[in-house]
Amino acid sequence: MATITSVETIDLRFPTSLDASGSDAMNPDADYSASYVVIHTDGTDARGHQLTGYGLTFTIGRGNDIVCAAAQEYGNRLVGCDVDQMAADMGGIYLHLASDSQMRWLGPEKGVVHLALSAVMNAVWDLAGRLAGKPVWRLLAEMTPEQLVDIADLRYLADVLPRERALEILQQAEAGKAERIADLEAAGYPAYTTAAGWLGYSDEKMLRIIAEQEQLGFTAVKLKVGANLDDDIRRCTKAREAIGAHRPLMIDANQIWDVPTAIRWVNALKQFDLKWIEEPTSPDDVLGHRKVRDAVAPIGVATGEHCHNRVMFKQFLEAGAMDYCQIDAGRLASVNEILAVLLLAAHFEVPVCPHAGGVGLCEMVHHMSMLDYVAVSGSYEGRLTEYVDSLHEYFVHPVKVANGRYQVTGDPGYNTEMTQAAIDEFSFPDGSYWASVR
Amino acid sequence: MATITSVETIDLRFPTSLDASGSDAMNPDADYSASYVVIHTDGTDARGHQLTGYGLTFTIGRGNDIVCAAAQEYGNRLVGCDVDQMAADMGGIYLHLASDSQMRWLGPEKGVVHLALSAVMNAVWDLAGRLAGKPVWRLLAEMTPEQLVDIADLRYLADVLPRERALEILQQAEAGKAERIADLEAAGYPAYTTAAGWLGYSDEKMLRIIAEQEQLGFTAVKLKVGANLDDDIRRCTKAREAIGAHRPLMIDANQIWDVPTAIRWVNALKQFDLKWIEEPTSPDDVLGHRKVRDAVAPIGVATGEHCHNRVMFKQFLEAGAMDYCQIDAGRLASVNEILAVLLLAAHFEVPVCPHAGGVGLCEMVHHMSMLDYVAVSGSYEGRLTEYVDSLHEYFVHPVKVANGRYQVTGDPGYNTEMTQAAIDEFSFPDGSYWASVR
Repeated sequence: MATITSVETIDLRFPTSLDASGSDAMNPDADYSASYVVIHTDGTDARGHQLTGYGLTFTIGRGNDIVCAAAQEYGNRLVGCDVDQMAADMGGIYLHLASDSQMRWLGPEKGVVHLALSAVMNAVWDLAGRLAGKPVWRLLAEMTPEQLVDIADLRYLADVLPRERALEILQQAEAGKAERIADLEAAGYPAYTTAAGWLGYSDEKMLRIIAEQEQLGFTAVKLKVGANLDDDIRRCTKAREAIGAHRPLMIDANQIWDVPTAIRWVNALKQFDLKWIEEPTSPDDVLGHRKVRDAVAPIGVATGEHCHNRVMFKQFLEAGAMDYCQIDAGRLASVNEILAVLLLAAHFEVPVCPHAGGVGLCEMVHHMSMLDYVAVSGSYEGRLTEYVDSLHEYFVHPVKVANGRYQVTGDPGYNTEMTQAAIDEFSFPDGSYWASVR
Repeated sequence: MATITSVETIDLRFPTSLDASGSDAMNPDADYSASYVVIHTDGTDARGHQLTGYGLTFTIGRGNDIVCAAAQEYGNRLVGCDVDQMAADMGGIYLHLASDSQMRWLGPEKGVVHLALSAVMNAVWDLAGRLAGKPVWRLLAEMTPEQLVDIADLRYLADVLPRERALEILQQAEAGKAERIADLEAAGYPAYTTAAGWLGYSDEKMLRIIAEQEQLGFTAVKLKVGANLDDDIRRCTKAREAIGAHRPLMIDANQIWDVPTAIRWVNALKQFDLKWIEEPTSPDDVLGHRKVRDAVAPIGVATGEHCHNRVMFKQFLEAGAMDYCQIDAGRLASVNEILAVLLLAAHFEVPVCPHAGGVGLCEMVHHMSMLDYVAVSGSYEGRLTEYVDSLHEYFVHPVKVANGRYQVTGDPGYNTEMTQAAIDEFSFPDGSYWASVR
């Protein structure tokens, strides 16, 4: 028996702009940040520890306080909830939060309020995992198809994915589930790295990191592009030489182009045998992505880190506008909405290759890739989940990668608890780091 | 010579939920609110008054403080700007605000940050109008096609509306401009009313208001629908009887349905000869709107009050998913983005019928309808701008309607200045009204 006693939000900002990590054509000076949510209860977990849920969404600096304010608004709606009842109806608690019509008006289901809903529901999922003493991916993997379809947010999807079709996909994935879980525990889930590719890095730094990452088993590389075509040709040339002819090389323009520019620019890089162009234009431009896709094939089009909800993913998938579906664990409103997108992608047979990096995105999203493999698509053929080796030291139970793959950690919850040291140093504006530079 | 000295944001909330005005299937208890922005300068206007700009966006209660916080973030970027320079380059100041990449991440170009950008830029436009001593619509109407295309936000539109095409539309509208201005001054711009149609109203109240509005010259009526089909059939029957066979009757579902439900429900109301079904489903569901449109013709599909930016309007227009384009003066990022949507709509020959009501939306958007008529589409054939007779008493220069038409007021600026009495009473949470009920 446990009740939620309070919900706390903390604005955490890391000064990543200082070394240009995270720099791309659209975002030259990102300070990677977390809108961090802590759900306090009066209960204890299976091990007798205080039962607490931790969640977050990711932003890049200014405005992180605004997301925290919105998360606090949702969090206040949780105070007094019974934790067991909540964990028994994770679809219900999600709808309870999502149905605040006054907050909904500010999206709806997009932008700050949706990021905030994600942060709060991520903490709710962490809490549910801790209550059960299981990692979130396993908590989900052990649910029946009926239980899973009940937590998926299928609102507005009925014309493409009625409940019966969602159930059918989940039922089909029942076969071989135990083998896939064993496979994950033994080998992990395939990943690729963006560590080398930031636009602000020198060629030397890029090549050094590619070599380092290769030692860690990462054989695919992604580069940021879009500021200067000559630079992009030079960087792609060097990266392709470094990794060899047959390994995946991807590029990411972070929305910097309009459609005609995207087509021209990507075709000028065709010689490098690219697996995908990521975010070639506005994340809202469904039909524009389709035009780019038609014009740059066989290079695939990848997008999704700014695709703001399941309804937008429905557009991209139905319009044939994406080859790779890049869900984001802080942009979509937690497991409930991600599961709906995994089902949509399975229905349209488009591989899910999640966005990660940022703060805590790797921690959360590897659970979702494992869920996809175990219980939805049943495959990791052609799939790669992003990995960036930064800021993991601020998590109590960070993700583990080995041989270029995300490993099963076994930690109860969503791997989202941050260290007290991180909070003390990087709370904004009063943490010790920010106090020292103002 | 004037410089912006400070920008102030004020959270204003009106307790409209008390009498169910504003109630619809999705939003049962809206407290109509304004995220209100005041730009202070050290200069004076043409009449020797203190030069100040006033702007706002509209929300429905909780979270209005969050929009104000985001508006303050943008507003701070204006402090120190030279007002004359700004007014001479209204495209430049817009891009300066829109290009904050850290804030952009929280949308991009949607949700809270976009509402906030709208509120701030609406105040900038009000300031520019006051500086020139002209209403905003006239300030714009007197610009050359080249000047107009320079202020329009055409980013991400090039595949559909390249700059040359936008310029061509504006140049074509030069013919007859003076006659259209004279026509507006004499007759005004056609409007319709939603005053009768709120879902929380009794049939008697609905019919009484329809009769009152008819006395004021409003011959078209819009009803909220979507909570209960039997109720909707009864209300439509009574409304159609009251207005007669040949006058426009529209319905508005405020996003309550999925696509199959929308098609079934609207077709069950076909006998009432409806002009349009507004917001049948999620405002992000471009392809879903197309399906609804195909299935309910000849009833038109109207949407746009939650269509979050010009790129989304591009989707709807290119996909053939809307018959009526309902721009919103607080959802789109001010004149700069609205002008881009007016141009898109003209290109696709779709009539613009703006959303209004709320707080201050009528005040702002009638300028945009007049701009459309004078300088873009050149026509009000088939076009109607929404009007709701509420909360105008809180504006210093409220809109005027006569004979069912928005009248030219002649007041310099954007009609967005609110009264000190409104601020004193309805500031949240410390205004006299809110203090009295807590």
